[in-house]
Amino acid sequence: MRINGQQYRTIWLTDSTDVDDITDIKIKSVSIIDQTKLPHRFVVTQINMLDQMVVAIKTMQVRGAPLIGAAAAYGMALAVQQDGSDASLESAATHLIHSRPTAINLRWAVQRMLDVLQPLPVARRNEAAWFEAAVICNEDVELNRMIGAHGLHLIAPLAAQQSRAINILTHCNAGWLATVDFGTALAPIYAAHDAGIAVHVWVDETRPRNQGASLTAWELAQHGVPHTVISDNAGGHLMQKGAVDMVIVGADCVTLTGDVCNKIGTYLKALAAFDQNVPFYAAVPSPTIDWSIEDGVKSIEIEERDAREVAWMTGRLASGEIAEINILPPGTKVANPAFDVTPARLVTGIITEQGIYAPHELNAMQR
Amino acid sequence: MRINGQQYRTIWLTDSTDVDDITDIKIKSVSIIDQTKLPHRFVVTQINMLDQMVVAIKTMQVRGAPLIGAAAAYGMALAVQQDGSDASLESAATHLIHSRPTAINLRWAVQRMLDVLQPLPVARRNEAAWFEAAVICNEDVELNRMIGAHGLHLIAPLAAQQSRAINILTHCNAGWLATVDFGTALAPIYAAHDAGIAVHVWVDETRPRNQGASLTAWELAQHGVPHTVISDNAGGHLMQKGAVDMVIVGADCVTLTGDVCNKIGTYLKALAAFDQNVPFYAAVPSPTIDWSIEDGVKSIEIEERDAREVAWMTGRLASGEIAEINILPPGTKVANPAFDVTPARLVTGIITEQGIYAPHELNAMQR
Repeated sequence: MRINGQQYRTIWLTDSTDVDDITDIKIKSVSIIDQTKLPHRFVVTQINMLDQMVVAIKTMQVRGAPLIGAAAAYGMALAVQQDGSDASLESAATHLIHSRPTAINLRWAVQRMLDVLQPLPVARRNEAAWFEAAVICNEDVELNRMIGAHGLHLIAPLAAQQSRAINILTHCNAGWLATVDFGTALAPIYAAHDAGIAVHVWVDETRPRNQGASLTAWELAQHGVPHTVISDNAGGHLMQKGAVDMVIVGADCVTLTGDVCNKIGTYLKALAAFDQNVPFYAAVPSPTIDWSIEDGVKSIEIEERDAREVAWMTGRLASGEIAEINILPPGTKVANPAFDVTPARLVTGIITEQGIYAPHELNAMQR
Repeated sequence: MRINGQQYRTIWLTDSTDVDDITDIKIKSVSIIDQTKLPHRFVVTQINMLDQMVVAIKTMQVRGAPLIGAAAAYGMALAVQQDGSDASLESAATHLIHSRPTAINLRWAVQRMLDVLQPLPVARRNEAAWFEAAVICNEDVELNRMIGAHGLHLIAPLAAQQSRAINILTHCNAGWLATVDFGTALAPIYAAHDAGIAVHVWVDETRPRNQGASLTAWELAQHGVPHTVISDNAGGHLMQKGAVDMVIVGADCVTLTGDVCNKIGTYLKALAAFDQNVPFYAAVPSPTIDWSIEDGVKSIEIEERDAREVAWMTGRLASGEIAEINILPPGTKVANPAFDVTPARLVTGIITEQGIYAPHELNAMQR
């Protein structure tokens, strides 16, 4: 997608001029867009070592399930570049997997890297790791392009019945910033917009980290898609008033049975959509489906994140300077569960690269 | 209630030393706690004229349905103090009623002042206005005390079955800061706490104005009631996990049929409570019930407030200085509906000064 008119992905390989003394191989590093700085500053950060990538994932400089997967793959490559031994591989895998417990793509990408690298002799692992990480990135782009193509088939018929823009509500950021490119939840929206269909996006602010207000609003603006930011509290009312034609969210994990684990607050929007007969979709690439989990509410471990995320907020002062403020009375106790699980009974369908499935049909998908 | 150990109401009469030249009567003014400055600063503001009171209501220096009613009554008294003519009364009433369209208590209080003042000769209106406004304040305190007493009967039996604290979720601020004293939604909680029952309050942050994070957290802390602030997105998940025993909210308006119009986002919490079999109560004094409205979703006009409320946020910098930041990309469009309507089918009961009523029983109340 474009930033200020220039083509970008969210993660890419940086060819360094440094050359390894012994192997004579160019040392590689990875560039990411530091998403904690958006929408106020556009900062590209270079990642040279595994530990930096673990920090980038933990602090959400990179976030979004598919992008975390890609970042983890490159994290493995960075680890192998330094030390290709079995011990190094295992240690890197452990570190990466523990950086965000809920992210199934992360475990999936790390396991895939292990499956490719472990059978190889140590000397061949470096090249293979960089190659495989790039393949994972390219596959993600292709999966998302397909999600967009399938999702377009939900939006186009609605648009054909209406002379107004189709209103789609989304929560958090499952746009191209959450993936390597195109996005998941926003892929159908970009596909529709690019096909000349009038769409308008209700962007949930998405407290506590404000990914909607800061990331989704920013990337939609960069691409020219009309949108309006609302507080997370407003979506139910808008659905009640007929102002929402469809909800599309991403997911950090979808279970075999179609339960959707996504950013905290998704469950509330799904309840409102169900109550108001608004179709509710989760858009995910198939690696986001955890075929081992049946009951998402019971089985999925919900990450409890730092109280600081609720207490402190970043923005621009009237002067334009970036500042962080604390909105709570001093000493206030905070709870910060980062995700919730929307039971399949509230989900209209799962938009995947293979097509659109009702929750109970997921089992029929190619794994 | 107490602030730093000292007893306060949210609005009170200030005896001025100024004396009217002609009538030789002491000129009165009204003191309010400027709630836009909380929780960072405790500021008392003196209101000398109607226009200042209209601004105080519009900018939410005073807010909360019952307190707005009391403030409007004093606004009428301030108008009469300046000019007791019929024209002045009517103009004051119009200004006050338009300052917050959703607030039924405001209309109720203004009408009550008109009913008392209009039949009187102009010369007697000033004294009568101040007297009636004080009566409205005292009645509010008494109504809220009774709401607390009735609500206690919901909490006490739960506490008797549990060896842990009773977890009550509330949205926005319907505490003593929203009334003249005691609060509505928080009155049962204060009553339980003061009766030695262990209660813990989940405090919804309540975007966009953060009344939960700034006002409810602040007043619960002042009174020593254990509480935890959560993002508005978290309540559904907490109910799903069994961490909420009861929801109690206030309301700006309850219809004859039990529909509850309250701060935006209440509907989403009610949906979750219904889905998870958590009892959902609105606590209101009877003047908050609009006996003329049957279908709240269709009939209640929802106030659309300034986009600034979503874009800008106030808090403390690390230095302790108060600052305001903009969290959105420049030029982002915002929608800001301030209230929503929770249909009666999701409401377990309405806690009033006369007792607790199921929505369909409201009609049996003394009006």
